[in-house]
Amino acid sequence: MKLLDSGLNAVQGYKSAGIHAGIKKAKKDLALIVSDIPAAAAGVFTINKVQAAPVTYDKAVIAAGKPVRAIVVNSGNANACTGKPGLADAEIMAKTTAAALDLGLGLGAEDGSAVLVCSTGVIGVPLPMEKVESGIKMAAQKLSSTRESAIDTAEAILTTDTFKKEIAVEIIIDGKPVVLAGIAKGSGMIHPNMATLLSFIITDANIEAETLQGLLGTSISSTYNMISVDGDTSTNDTVLALANGASNTPLIERGTEVATKFAEAFDYVHAYLAKQIVRDGEGASKFIETKIVGAVQEADAKLLAKSIITSNLVKTAIFGEDANWGRILCAMGYSGARFNPDTVDLTIASSQGEILLLRQGAPVPFDEEIALAILKEHDIVITATLQDGKAEATAWGCDLSYEYVKINGEYRT
Amino acid sequence: MKLLDSGLNAVQGYKSAGIHAGIKKAKKDLALIVSDIPAAAAGVFTINKVQAAPVTYDKAVIAAGKPVRAIVVNSGNANACTGKPGLADAEIMAKTTAAALDLGLGLGAEDGSAVLVCSTGVIGVPLPMEKVESGIKMAAQKLSSTRESAIDTAEAILTTDTFKKEIAVEIIIDGKPVVLAGIAKGSGMIHPNMATLLSFIITDANIEAETLQGLLGTSISSTYNMISVDGDTSTNDTVLALANGASNTPLIERGTEVATKFAEAFDYVHAYLAKQIVRDGEGASKFIETKIVGAVQEADAKLLAKSIITSNLVKTAIFGEDANWGRILCAMGYSGARFNPDTVDLTIASSQGEILLLRQGAPVPFDEEIALAILKEHDIVITATLQDGKAEATAWGCDLSYEYVKINGEYRT
Repeated sequence: MKLLDSGLNAVQGYKSAGIHAGIKKAKKDLALIVSDIPAAAAGVFTINKVQAAPVTYDKAVIAAGKPVRAIVVNSGNANACTGKPGLADAEIMAKTTAAALDLGLGLGAEDGSAVLVCSTGVIGVPLPMEKVESGIKMAAQKLSSTRESAIDTAEAILTTDTFKKEIAVEIIIDGKPVVLAGIAKGSGMIHPNMATLLSFIITDANIEAETLQGLLGTSISSTYNMISVDGDTSTNDTVLALANGASNTPLIERGTEVATKFAEAFDYVHAYLAKQIVRDGEGASKFIETKIVGAVQEADAKLLAKSIITSNLVKTAIFGEDANWGRILCAMGYSGARFNPDTVDLTIASSQGEILLLRQGAPVPFDEEIALAILKEHDIVITATLQDGKAEATAWGCDLSYEYVKINGEYRT
Repeated sequence: MKLLDSGLNAVQGYKSAGIHAGIKKAKKDLALIVSDIPAAAAGVFTINKVQAAPVTYDKAVIAAGKPVRAIVVNSGNANACTGKPGLADAEIMAKTTAAALDLGLGLGAEDGSAVLVCSTGVIGVPLPMEKVESGIKMAAQKLSSTRESAIDTAEAILTTDTFKKEIAVEIIIDGKPVVLAGIAKGSGMIHPNMATLLSFIITDANIEAETLQGLLGTSISSTYNMISVDGDTSTNDTVLALANGASNTPLIERGTEVATKFAEAFDYVHAYLAKQIVRDGEGASKFIETKIVGAVQEADAKLLAKSIITSNLVKTAIFGEDANWGRILCAMGYSGARFNPDTVDLTIASSQGEILLLRQGAPVPFDEEIALAILKEHDIVITATLQDGKAEATAWGCDLSYEYVKINGEYRT
């Protein structure tokens, strides 16, 4: 697998655009991602009972297994808690996109279902449809496969994010390059079972929708579902993947070596985007990785890793650069996971070194100055080594800072 | 039921003391509560897998159903994650107390088990036993039933709390007054399934340990277990109740009218202390009550109320005095409870009035100025009315402020 210094533009047979439609005051707020030919599509959505209109809309498209030509995304307005008019608006977004792209009939264009729709932003406010519709037409005119368009697209889906998240990787199948590229957005309401995140992965691999959906389900459980910014699971979380086969490589069949190679690249792209989202977590001043090794089962390891990364007390301790192992062990204790607290080894590490805090569940005297030097760094790794089994898991999160309170205490006003 | 302007001193047949033993720099840090005669005892403890030594110790005493003469409490050090030496220290605290009180044999004094032990404070540091032991002896000398001693006792159990929590209520049984009084402490690591709280309720009612334990279990599920400050469940949470029968009233039998009367007073004391704990939540600038009515079952109502009160995004919105119903509905959506989002009515209220934010799941236009006037108050009530059934629940919490981050980012340093 080769990491490309690029984004969506690196994938064959796709065009994209990101423009300012006027939903936000000044920043880009509407994106289009279009495959030249029908693409196999897979999607995973929020498990929140309160689901935004585009989530309801997309779930039906994905469930029907229809090939997809385009994804249309607006930021600045979530089209959530907007009732039946909101659902109608999501459908109009799809139909307007289909019309603007002249998708024609036979691809489900007539009912708009060849287009997937995403919205992110403020909840409970009707979409300004005039702006959205004219924006879609404008974006359709600007579609291109240039690097600039890919950057515009990555930027247009952002909300409180402070930087764009994009990645492109290349694998070789049957001697030919196959590219997977993705973009994503955070950065609040980020928690288990899908973050308030939108994430779009496109590839020119040749893979059927069902296979792609299977890989997506597996991939999110160890990537997006292992990150947390604030413990809130959003109403709009959506990960969509499109595969258009434009690489002209053989069909990727389940259970083959090629499928494994593709899955590894697919997982890498998701993990990268998931980590970028927490790196850009609201108010984050630290990036925290939590590794659990030696757990009874993977489910236990995941519960432990997630519990640590979600604890407000652990997060504020890391913000305060305090090697407070008591809070870490406490968060493990209430996680609900099976483990023996009396055999836990706990370390904290960064580029400045590693320090042992607990050996066999008991505190180890450590040099506070060395601990502080380690914790002064931006990227912190907490590792808990158990003696309970062989399962492992990793979770990613960020600290809880004054800035988080500021952003969320003043978001709407 | 009559509310008394008093504390532990209002209950017949008990003495108490609170002193400075030197575990903390200057503040009181050691408390004794002693019944003149053996008392029936009940206890509920943290469900965290990492349990402090005194929790382990007390659980065994309560499980054995032994009558109890005293509770000894130190603040400033949690005696948690201290291994076998920690357990030995808890036992020494009990034995030292028994000896200082000259409890004699026959009451389990020989093995110290007639004394319950609690610790709260920093995790992972061995107790300074010399100071603890001399402190216990000093406190035993100062035992009294004066108002002043009761206040000292309420103060000596505090950690980051900014005010003491105490209450006393009187009911009449068989023509005679029976008093229930309690003290408690918060104020971080406060969450479901017992907060980092210590709470001690004493009464002169005549009730057996088994009946008292049954009432305690019921009571905490709708009081302490319905509060949250920060979502962290501590290693030391303990609620203890003693009943010494000094009121000379008839034995309270299960299922009788008198038992109901006692249970109501018991619940009232717990609910009061639970609410006081969140009022004094770390960094709290607002007190938030969340009421759910019309839920399918009480379990659903509780999940919904707890999910709202625990959401960092709801908490920061209230801190920012923002009527952000979207975050409230979102938190309900990921709670795991059964409910229909399309029939939710949502209001926010305070002493300045009430405002409807959602009707039948859809946003209602409201006057932002009126909303702000309501949210400027300290006590905020969020009410969600569902159309799904007849069950209700209430939870209590506080906002998430800069001060919370400050307190927990700088706690140890």
